[in-house]
This record gives sequence, C-alpha cells and structure tokens, in this order.
Amino acid sequence: MTQTKKLRLALDAMGGDDAPACVIQGADIARGENQHFDMVFYGDRSRIEPLLKRTRYLGNAEIVHTSDAVSPDDTASQAVRRGKETSMWLSIASVANGEADAVVSAGNTGALMAMSKLQFRTMEGVTRPAIAAFFPTIGESMCMLDLGANLECDAENLVQFAILGQAFHRSLTGKKDPCLGLLNVGEEEQKGHEYLRVASRQLADPDLGLNYQGFVEGIDITNGKLDVVVTDGFSGNIALKTAEGISKMFTHLLRRSLNKSLISKIGYFLARSALKDMRNHIDPRRYNGAVFLGLNGIAVKSHGGTDKLGFANAIKVATELVEHGFLPDVSAAIAHANTILERKKEDA
Amino acid sequence: MTQTKKLRLALDAMGGDDAPACVIQGADIARGENQHFDMVFYGDRSRIEPLLKRTRYLGNAEIVHTSDAVSPDDTASQAVRRGKETSMWLSIASVANGEADAVVSAGNTGALMAMSKLQFRTMEGVTRPAIAAFFPTIGESMCMLDLGANLECDAENLVQFAILGQAFHRSLTGKKDPCLGLLNVGEEEQKGHEYLRVASRQLADPDLGLNYQGFVEGIDITNGKLDVVVTDGFSGNIALKTAEGISKMFTHLLRRSLNKSLISKIGYFLARSALKDMRNHIDPRRYNGAVFLGLNGIAVKSHGGTDKLGFANAIKVATELVEHGFLPDVSAAIAHANTILERKKEDA
Repeated sequence: MTQTKKLRLALDAMGGDDAPACVIQGADIARGENQHFDMVFYGDRSRIEPLLKRTRYLGNAEIVHTSDAVSPDDTASQAVRRGKETSMWLSIASVANGEADAVVSAGNTGALMAMSKLQFRTMEGVTRPAIAAFFPTIGESMCMLDLGANLECDAENLVQFAILGQAFHRSLTGKKDPCLGLLNVGEEEQKGHEYLRVASRQLADPDLGLNYQGFVEGIDITNGKLDVVVTDGFSGNIALKTAEGISKMFTHLLRRSLNKSLISKIGYFLARSALKDMRNHIDPRRYNGAVFLGLNGIAVKSHGGTDKLGFANAIKVATELVEHGFLPDVSAAIAHANTILERKKEDA
Repeated sequence: MTQTKKLRLALDAMGGDDAPACVIQGADIARGENQHFDMVFYGDRSRIEPLLKRTRYLGNAEIVHTSDAVSPDDTASQAVRRGKETSMWLSIASVANGEADAVVSAGNTGALMAMSKLQFRTMEGVTRPAIAAFFPTIGESMCMLDLGANLECDAENLVQFAILGQAFHRSLTGKKDPCLGLLNVGEEEQKGHEYLRVASRQLADPDLGLNYQGFVEGIDITNGKLDVVVTDGFSGNIALKTAEGISKMFTHLLRRSLNKSLISKIGYFLARSALKDMRNHIDPRRYNGAVFLGLNGIAVKSHGGTDKLGFANAIKVATELVEHGFLPDVSAAIAHANTILERKKEDA
C-alpha cells in the first residue's frame, strides 16, 4: 500500500517477564522486517535508553517517560485505579487520541483488556469484545475466539464473534472467505446448549454470506479444515489451556524417549533437523499476539513469558492489522450483519 | 479377595465397529488375565459361536441369543423404543436383575447411557450420573468427569461428581486419597462461574475430608499432579476432544518430520524402540473404558473403534470395579457427604 503518513506503533516497554529488554529487542527485529512504522516506547527512560542504543534500527526511537507500571499481580480494577501514568495506560491513550495506530503490551492481560475497553470503547454494533489468537493445526494456522474475555455468552455474542474472527483472519492471512465453525460437543444440529443452536441457525443464514461450516468438535480445532473457531470464553480458555498441557506432555515424553538409550540418542541426533521443522511448526512464538476484537482501536497482547522473537510476532500482528485496514473492514462487516439480522427480526 | 461365588460379566457382543469379533477376542485376552469372571455374550449366536470356538479360554462360554441390536445411528430414545430384545438392553438387564455383576458394551453411547439409567436407576443421593474415564499425563494416569452426560451443571452436581470420581479412581488404582481439582479458567478463588465458586467452597470443607486442591486449569489436566479433574459435561467434552485433536496433530507432524529425509528415516529407525515407549504411554487402548458413575450398577462403555486390546482394557475396568467393591464404596461416600452437607445447610 502507499503510505501517505508514517505509521506509529505504541509499545508498553514495561510489560512482560523480561521487560524492557524483550520489548526493545523484539521491536528491533520487527522494525528490520517492516520500516513503515515508527516505534514509540512507553516506560522508564533510564532503562529503555541504554537498551535502544544497542539496537540496530531503533537508536533514535522516541521514548515517552513514565516511572509507573502496572504490576502483573494487579487485578484489572486495581490497575485502572493505579492510574493514568502507567506505561500501559499511556501507550493505549496514544492510540485512543490518534497519535499512534496500534499498541502492543506483554503486561497484565486483565489490565490491558480493561484499559483498552475504557479508552477505545466498544465498537458500534458490538455487544462485547472478545480475545482472539492464531494457533497451529495440521495444515494452515487457524484463529479461535473468545479465549476468556466472556465466560458466559449468548447467541448474539457468538454471531458477533464469528464476524470479528472472520475479519481478523482475513486481515492477517489475506484469505477472502475464511471458513468458520462453532464449537460444540457434537456436529448434529440438536446438540449442545440452546444458545448454540440459535447462533448456529443465524450463522447459517445465507443472507449473512458467511462461510459457515456448522458445529465442530474439539478434535476439529487442529485438523486444518477450519480458519476460525468460535466459542464462549470459558470453553475457549479450557480448549486453549488443555492444548497447551497436551503439547507440554508430548514434548516431555518425546524428549524422555529420545534420551532413553545411546541408540535412541544417535537416532535423535540424526533426526534432529527434521524434528526442528516440527518444533518450528508448533512454536508458540510464531503464534504470539492475541487481539481484543470489537474495540475502536487495536491492542495486541503478547504473552508475558515470550522472548524477543515472540514479541516481534506480536508487533507483526499489530502492524498487519493496521496496514490491512482491519478496523474499517470489521466495522463494515458488523454493520452489514446487524442490518440483516435486524431486518429479519422485524420480518419475523 | 476370596471368591465366594463366581462373578459374571455381561458382554454386549454386537456393539462396536468390529463386533462381535473384537468383543470376543478382547474378552479372551481379559479372561487370560483374570479367571474370576465368567463371560456371558449377548447377541447373534450364529456369529458368536464360531468365533468363541477359536478362542483360548472361551470355548464353553454362555451365549444369550438375540438377533436385535442397537444401531450406531439410533438416538437414545430410538434405541430404547427399539426395545428390550436388543443385545445391549438384555446385557444391561442381566446386571439389573442380579444375574451378572457388570456389563461392557462398545455400542452407541447415548443408548447405553439411557438404557443403563432406566434399568439401574440413579444411586440414592446422586442427582445426575456422569461419564468418567482415565487419561495419560506426564506422570500417573488421571480420571476426568463429566465427559458429556450433563452439559449444564450446578454446584451440587459438581460436588457429587468429585465424590464419584474419587471413589472411581480409588477402585482402579488403590490410591487411598486421590487428589481432586475443579476445572476453571484460572486458579484464583474469584475466577469463573458462580456455581464453580460455590462448588469449590463446599469441596474445600474439611468435614468432607476430600483431598481437594482447588481450581485447576486446562494445562494442569496432564501435568501428573492431579488424580481426578471435575468439570461439567460441556467443558469436559471440549477438553477431551481438543486433547484428542492435539495428539493427532503431534503424531501427524512427528511422522511427517521423521519421514522427511533419508537421514531422518535412519534416525527414526534407531529411535523407534524408544518412541514405542512413548506411544505406549499415551496409547488410547490402555485407557479405554468409560464408566457411567452414579448408577446402581456398573456399565462400562468401550470406544466403538477400539481393537481387542482396547476392549480387553474396558473389561478390566469393569472387573476391577466389581472386585474392589466400587458400588458399596461410592454409595457410602455419597451418603456420608450428603449427611454432612445437609447438616451444614440446617446450621446455616
């Protein structure tokens, strides 16, 4: 795309286990890959400045100094009360007031969610924002939402999540018509909670024009046939964390097996470059960067325990959403869907 | 234990993808390992008899002939209407009327659940029965319930599931005081649905004497620290199926990686016996055999697609529950818990 003005990314330099080093090193990697964005760092100047000096691309990057930071242990309301001088609040504010185009933070999730919602406000036509992220499958990666922002959902929420998720997937992959599934305990129409059946009927409405595949089960999440999996925040969180646990178990058992004997160690040595491909395919850093969808602003949450490569990926998520016009795209999609659903309600 | 009378196991010979062969071959393996049980086969004599002749231990086993069988596509109510001459119904009936001590079927899950509930009736003090099964972890196996019988649960259900699950685990492992966790989206007390918080407070009550660890997350299911994970049937099903999907993905990616080049194939060849240990650790056949807990009878559901080794394991689950006195144990545990909870309610 042609850049008329320079884009700006606000980075909460004080969030995450290894902040600010990880944030700055990650930003340096991201800047090496995409020069369209100026990076602005929010946080403690005395700690940020020396680190910036050691970067390749960010020696002259702007710092907005503040000595306040949200603590990882703060509840969302404590963080909001702690106030408007924290690096998290200020970095979000810079997007809310138009100075920056998106914000990335590896800080406290609840606080980032609460502050983003307060400052960005929920998008018109959206009842509740949701957390979405990408995950590996046997084939291409897929995105799932909600991952924990809304523990209880109704049919309307789920239909909106589907539209948000589809636009999110489109922005990051360029796929025109991502295919959607609604998570349930069986594929048959009569399965599951009543609100799931209502949502499924609406999503299947041809006038909405969604590429909706119907109910899917947990086993389908990773089969590579779905682009977007829609669910409530409770089930989404359970699925996500269970997947994480199983992955850990596999890695642990695989390592233990391969270190069992001298012969298996030699086998491991010979197969290690092939196994590296596998590790790479499922490397959580490649999928790092969860997004709060349904707000009038782009806030990307990096995992707090990731490294510079993971943080660079979270930045990439933010810059792609900006460059591919995610906000106008999703807001048009929501308005379109609401018009149709509203008309159907009147007709009924 | 000393056997005063010969124990009897009722087997639905017509349930499962490869019935009756898989049922009979599995029973033969199980019989080789445990001679305390006579096996009785329910189904089509003309198909069962020739197969029994080829077994090592079951040449003289009893057959109760019926030509009716539940179809895998029947809904639960269709199956019940189809009637009382199906191999599934008759095998359950033999337990209900005291002729046999437990029943094992690889047939239609919904039908088995409905028929068991109708014939066994729900245990006194239990509001709703639940499906439980064992799964691999990094350490010892753990059991999870409910896996899909009750999509919506309240605090009372979950507390009962915990007691049922603990007794189930105790019966199969001999561990005196299995440790319990309640599945949630975070470990903090204020997390999750209100009914989860109520259940958690009750489970933590020292008078109940449960080894309760509090809220756990999806990632904890496989960490080897828990013996029993309690959840509602919707979340349990999502966790179970997601785990299955991730396992498939891993196996697929691992195989693809190891077949990538000649070198990696040689590596695979050298490591194959070590990798076999890993496959063995997570082999679903070793965990086959889900149980409907909370009924006045023991019905074990084998996976329909398992082989003879898997079916033999489902039989082992049934025989161990009988031999370890699961029914009197769990019924005493439920009565004890209900007395205490009732007294607390009156005191409050």
